[in-house]
Amino acid sequence: MHIALTGAASGIGAALVRRLKAAGHRITAFDIAKPEGVDRWLPVDMADTAAVAQAADAAEGPFDALILNAGLPPRDGNAAQLLAVNVFGLMATATALEPKLAPGASIVATASRAGEHWRENLPQVKALMGLPGPDSLPDFVAANHIDPLRAYCLSKEAVIVWTIRQTERLLAKGLRANCVCPSAVDTPILSDFKAALGERAAGSLARVGRAGTADEIAAVIAFLAGPDSGWMRGQAIPVDGGISAMVLADETDLV
Amino acid sequence: MHIALTGAASGIGAALVRRLKAAGHRITAFDIAKPEGVDRWLPVDMADTAAVAQAADAAEGPFDALILNAGLPPRDGNAAQLLAVNVFGLMATATALEPKLAPGASIVATASRAGEHWRENLPQVKALMGLPGPDSLPDFVAANHIDPLRAYCLSKEAVIVWTIRQTERLLAKGLRANCVCPSAVDTPILSDFKAALGERAAGSLARVGRAGTADEIAAVIAFLAGPDSGWMRGQAIPVDGGISAMVLADETDLV
Repeated sequence: MHIALTGAASGIGAALVRRLKAAGHRITAFDIAKPEGVDRWLPVDMADTAAVAQAADAAEGPFDALILNAGLPPRDGNAAQLLAVNVFGLMATATALEPKLAPGASIVATASRAGEHWRENLPQVKALMGLPGPDSLPDFVAANHIDPLRAYCLSKEAVIVWTIRQTERLLAKGLRANCVCPSAVDTPILSDFKAALGERAAGSLARVGRAGTADEIAAVIAFLAGPDSGWMRGQAIPVDGGISAMVLADETDLV
Repeated sequence: MHIALTGAASGIGAALVRRLKAAGHRITAFDIAKPEGVDRWLPVDMADTAAVAQAADAAEGPFDALILNAGLPPRDGNAAQLLAVNVFGLMATATALEPKLAPGASIVATASRAGEHWRENLPQVKALMGLPGPDSLPDFVAANHIDPLRAYCLSKEAVIVWTIRQTERLLAKGLRANCVCPSAVDTPILSDFKAALGERAAGSLARVGRAGTADEIAAVIAFLAGPDSGWMRGQAIPVDGGISAMVLADETDLV
């Protein structure tokens, strides 16, 4: 397969490169940093939708899969930039590359367990996705008092909504999209989440026993990108060592 | 891998046998009918929990995966028998074979989209799962006015609850369980569902374009049975061509 991959230089993306190359696939990577081991690297700042369109224009398809993995963690003062990358950069990449997808191609996005409350927060998610573009984000963030942690959760809620909402439109084009929802993963940005989440992160980690590895998430993304998951469409798949199932069992008094 | 598989003679089970054997795995099958192409067949009526225990006793482990795929569709007058096979037979098999599972083994159950309302129906699901055994089913079915279609939905709700509720207990033993939730699948029992569901089945099929194939479901079960899904635990995964995502998009006014 020829795979387009955003966010290929570190963490889950780097693990994906190793796994996909070992399986004999070809990778065109979109990242601000230089990734190791890909077939082609198109440097791009995902916060800049014009740059995204330009990079997509330079990419040579057709692609059998598009993996939208680029994303920022919550950091002091980065709410608007985070939403620009994680939501507008992701949507701009998908829009620009859709004409270069092969028939039957699979789109896979990296969402997060942090997006699990998308239903409760749907009005804010819809308001975000309805903005004319990332230039509106500083005002939106200020008006809605969105701190970086909320921005992160909101961005992943938007990725889940974006995945579900496209199902019927993509089906008509012979395409499909799914996303994965990891919880704590042992990547360079885990420390950002520990800082932002505090006790909550520690509690989940203790209950599951450890953080997931980047390769454990990459393995599921690779499955969703390939033909064996062809009948899965519009799904948000938790890949979290069981934490969401354990919390759900508590909430519904199953145990 | 050495895989224990219930319901191996037809439909998704037969597709699983072909797929798993092509990948070089060894299969011990539990089925009332003789399956093609497995390494060992232990004949057993899943409605008879004593027979299930006996067959499990005769099985030679260790097993790297246990796939609980046996199940009956709704048919006139079969509500109690259906619940005996789909719920009590499944739980009895898992209980009896758990000591023969290898460290890190994966359990995968075939649930259904028909079980999606497990939360709303949780009191009845808990009442069912709290029965002392399948002998209580005729009274339970009569007292609760459970027709075969409701029995089928209830049985799959119970499989989903059973999967979620076990997550923490299995984690402590180094094991895990997930289930798949197919919608209409092109197997010998599709006509039973069309008869039981009527217009509802036709509407879903038209929207997705076709029924899924047994092999499209088997491909996801095989993934969940293997090491690449190792960080997925306690999940109920829709494998339905996108119908549940499209319905969810309608319900939440996403499109």
